[in-house]
Amino acid sequence: MQRIMDLASIGAIDGGGCARLALTDEDAAGRDLVVGWMHELGMSVTTDVIGNVVGTWNVGKGSPVMTGSHIDTVRTGGKYDGNLGVLAGLEVIETLQESAYVPSRPICVGIFTNEEGSRFAPDMLGSLVYVGGLSIEDALDIVGIDGARVGDELERIGYNGATPCPGLAPHAFVELHIEQGPVLEKTDVKIGAVTGVQGISWQEVTITGQSNHAGTTPMNMRKDPGYVAAKIAVFLRDLADRYGGHQVCTVGKVDLFPNLINVIPAKAVMTLDVRNTDESILSTAELEITEFIKDLSRNEGVDISTRHLARFEPVVFHPQVIDIVEKASASHSPSVTRMPSGAGHDAQMLARVCPSAMIFVPSVEGISHNPAEYTDPEDLVMGSNILLQVLIELSHIEEFDS
Amino acid sequence: MQRIMDLASIGAIDGGGCARLALTDEDAAGRDLVVGWMHELGMSVTTDVIGNVVGTWNVGKGSPVMTGSHIDTVRTGGKYDGNLGVLAGLEVIETLQESAYVPSRPICVGIFTNEEGSRFAPDMLGSLVYVGGLSIEDALDIVGIDGARVGDELERIGYNGATPCPGLAPHAFVELHIEQGPVLEKTDVKIGAVTGVQGISWQEVTITGQSNHAGTTPMNMRKDPGYVAAKIAVFLRDLADRYGGHQVCTVGKVDLFPNLINVIPAKAVMTLDVRNTDESILSTAELEITEFIKDLSRNEGVDISTRHLARFEPVVFHPQVIDIVEKASASHSPSVTRMPSGAGHDAQMLARVCPSAMIFVPSVEGISHNPAEYTDPEDLVMGSNILLQVLIELSHIEEFDS
Repeated sequence: MQRIMDLASIGAIDGGGCARLALTDEDAAGRDLVVGWMHELGMSVTTDVIGNVVGTWNVGKGSPVMTGSHIDTVRTGGKYDGNLGVLAGLEVIETLQESAYVPSRPICVGIFTNEEGSRFAPDMLGSLVYVGGLSIEDALDIVGIDGARVGDELERIGYNGATPCPGLAPHAFVELHIEQGPVLEKTDVKIGAVTGVQGISWQEVTITGQSNHAGTTPMNMRKDPGYVAAKIAVFLRDLADRYGGHQVCTVGKVDLFPNLINVIPAKAVMTLDVRNTDESILSTAELEITEFIKDLSRNEGVDISTRHLARFEPVVFHPQVIDIVEKASASHSPSVTRMPSGAGHDAQMLARVCPSAMIFVPSVEGISHNPAEYTDPEDLVMGSNILLQVLIELSHIEEFDS
Repeated sequence: MQRIMDLASIGAIDGGGCARLALTDEDAAGRDLVVGWMHELGMSVTTDVIGNVVGTWNVGKGSPVMTGSHIDTVRTGGKYDGNLGVLAGLEVIETLQESAYVPSRPICVGIFTNEEGSRFAPDMLGSLVYVGGLSIEDALDIVGIDGARVGDELERIGYNGATPCPGLAPHAFVELHIEQGPVLEKTDVKIGAVTGVQGISWQEVTITGQSNHAGTTPMNMRKDPGYVAAKIAVFLRDLADRYGGHQVCTVGKVDLFPNLINVIPAKAVMTLDVRNTDESILSTAELEITEFIKDLSRNEGVDISTRHLARFEPVVFHPQVIDIVEKASASHSPSVTRMPSGAGHDAQMLARVCPSAMIFVPSVEGISHNPAEYTDPEDLVMGSNILLQVLIELSHIEEFDS
């Protein structure tokens, strides 16, 4: 708890939250703090070429069991999102060291770069590069919303490490994370054994019309990108309602140009965030959106271009790791449920190279990406104890079922 | 034409347009240039407490006939909007002086402060204060989109004059302006004899919901201000289509907070610009919008507050002045039509204190508030000649019909 509060004091914002956008000075200060704690625990610490930090407790033998998460936040983030997974890893190692328990494999804790994607797209960038899903050259050339380049920013904050990517595949990976949604609290269950992660489709839509005077242009002669953006946002909500189930759609960002009260905009730029646990439904949703945009472009006389910012298929975690999480949860928690994750997580990248799963603890009112984000300390402790047991059990497994 | 180009070089932007937001350094430089021209023409120049500049050619006797307009622009403005009306006034005076014609009344040219309203709301602020529609104390305390105060900015640029407001009522007022709409060009008519001005209703709508993670919040648990803003924008378009006629509705400005791709916004702020030539229809539109917003607030679980930024009833110009404009147009132009103005103009304020009307020249493709704004020089000359004749005829009238 002290480490959570200490880390949260860096980049603190009103309401108890954090603003540590990836590779900013605040992110660097957070990294320095956590790396210091790793050293205090006698861990060996490496930084790779995309800035992922891996601290390893070199005990046992064979390939390590890995845990970890991220410590970057959105601009209006909370204290727990990501930070919990990293700091609980340190807590597990400290606890094992204090009780003189020697695991049968090394245990390592990863801090993955730019998980949130709020400054640089795509999100989960560090773990994506770690597992070889994107070349380091392409990753370093990514330019953020403020015009900064990933490679330059890594160098600026001194986290341009030498360890190559893709990194070594761990024996297994498990990530403790807050749910960031309302399901556990609403169903009065304490722990989620996460079965997989929703697929994510991110697009940026740019609509170009004709800027003009708001008073003198008859409605039927308008080419209004602001109206078209509104129609797309309403269509997305309707689509999600029609599909039901795990379908969610969000328009979180809209910019009109010139953005003046009495001027029909010349241009609108908006983002579409579309997610589903089922790849075929997600693809159908994308097709429907593309068709809708094409028709709208024709009917409204505007040009519309779309750019995919990120696309991840739904991920299914390893059944054996899910089983271990579920059983360990049952022995530490009054209740556990299997559930998918609605958010993207680094674990979904690690799942490409080793058996992986996740542990969820409840988020009060489902609030996350918000200073009001909160999880009861009792639940944080419960989650950490489950993480400890899962890491030990994973270290005992010689070989996973394929 | 030279004066138009010289003035357009101040605050010039890409594409041949101008950015001279009211009371900025660019506005000040534009004022200095035009005031210099007034002095060259031997006019006496006064500046009043809201920064309106009135240049008077002191000939004849009795109360003056007034023309004029504004020289502030929107952020992406053109060369002609407003500027034409002021500079054509100077051209008329220069032409009369060159031909040694002495009008029977003084002729004055007004430059009215902050007509556009792009920096300070409401628009037409200078002429509103000139006719006593707003107290000078309230006007000076208006704070702009950049946090600047009207009174401070007037003082900063040295246009905090001593002449009191309300100003002296002229004998009559006529304003030459580009149409800023497509009607003249589309109907192949050269001159509009303007019969009145649409009523304008400006509101700012602030929607407060619950910021949350875009992936983990089920659709039915969202309180999404971005979606609500989109619904309102679509409703406004539908309302305008339903009403038909002279009804226009525009959402030119939308800001989401925090405006990030994977965060459901906490807040949305948008503007509504609603106009009609008929006061009762305009009021009905406002009522419908209020009802729609109330229902939406309840159904979507968001708080919505609205703030009126400006409200002007439709204005009907003086029949005698319209007649004079129409007849003068017929003698200089191949075609003239009576038409309402879709945009607000300083003439609608002057109409409160003296017989007033306007002359419109065509806008190519109806484009205005845009660097591509253009009117054929032939049409500018034709409009100026009509302005000259109208000013002379108005000066001959002893008393207008009431």
